[in-house]
Amino acid sequence: MNVLAKKLAPYTVLLASQSPRRHQLLRGLDIPFEIAQKDVEESYPSNISLHSIPQYVAKKKFEAFEPEISDTTFLITADTVVILNNQILQKPTSHNDARALLHSLSDNTHVVVTGVCFGLKNKSVAFASESYVTFAKLSNHEIDYYVDMYNPLDKAGAYGVQEWIGYIGIESITGSYYNIMGLPVQALYRKILEYEM
Amino acid sequence: MNVLAKKLAPYTVLLASQSPRRHQLLRGLDIPFEIAQKDVEESYPSNISLHSIPQYVAKKKFEAFEPEISDTTFLITADTVVILNNQILQKPTSHNDARALLHSLSDNTHVVVTGVCFGLKNKSVAFASESYVTFAKLSNHEIDYYVDMYNPLDKAGAYGVQEWIGYIGIESITGSYYNIMGLPVQALYRKILEYEM
Repeated sequence: MNVLAKKLAPYTVLLASQSPRRHQLLRGLDIPFEIAQKDVEESYPSNISLHSIPQYVAKKKFEAFEPEISDTTFLITADTVVILNNQILQKPTSHNDARALLHSLSDNTHVVVTGVCFGLKNKSVAFASESYVTFAKLSNHEIDYYVDMYNPLDKAGAYGVQEWIGYIGIESITGSYYNIMGLPVQALYRKILEYEM
Repeated sequence: MNVLAKKLAPYTVLLASQSPRRHQLLRGLDIPFEIAQKDVEESYPSNISLHSIPQYVAKKKFEAFEPEISDTTFLITADTVVILNNQILQKPTSHNDARALLHSLSDNTHVVVTGVCFGLKNKSVAFASESYVTFAKLSNHEIDYYVDMYNPLDKAGAYGVQEWIGYIGIESITGSYYNIMGLPVQALYRKILEYEM
């Protein structure tokens, strides 16, 4: 058994996310866990910095679960945003919107920030991780093909780094690849090992 | 159909590699292809620079296939090396060797270079792509767990970026994640689109 699985063995790990990418990433840590989901209003105060928003929203998601979890539940929540030119790119609302978002990312570098909140009831810890992503110039054909074939309406910034557009379009990243996918697993692993139960 | 699939449609794409990671990466470009393999002696002249070796070996692999491929075969070969402190880390020869390699990568930054050679018979093009990988400090437990559970004897530098050790151990990368996995698909895609048939 790995050291993280040993540490978490007395607890039920609960990943509160409906993202299949996050499920896959947490599975990669070789620990057992369960999945929960709940609709949480993802609003945030207008005066906080863009880069603090994911951590704020992750904490809000944690607090939405907190009253109903047991003392032996170890909860993990997360929120990912894409920031370009000091603006947050949301999930696209339509295929046209997805195409417009991808045009704005094309031939440009953006930041992906994932906020994570984890821990036992009344004892949560939150942190955020940032990665930089540089897209090559994307043609209309490439953007149309991706949007039609991959339907990225559930993805912040209208792309999945692990899909075709990430393969053909991303020239370079700086930081954690898994953070761009939706969960900074290396930082999360280290921080749970440091966490005092 | 995407533009690359359209360009390659008159040809049989042949990926000469037995690496399942490379098969997965090329599949991600949404093009049909076949797989071939052949034992090629991977030696290189002692006077070429370390960073040129993968491109040299990829070209050598291409030339080993060249006499026997048809005029409508579009061949792709590749070679990946891990370079640390100006030395090439080979595939480990034993579990002990794998542990020693991982100890040398721990708390350190190394370079992954993949050389690729592609094209039609007597008309090959070669290039190389470099990425930087920074590992956190790995404990003996972490190294032992990974080597025992994942048996990385087939991997240059004794690790797979897409496996547990990459999830818990890699703090940051600079460059292409897919290059570290074994094939710089973004550069390959662009270069095949530029290639004159």
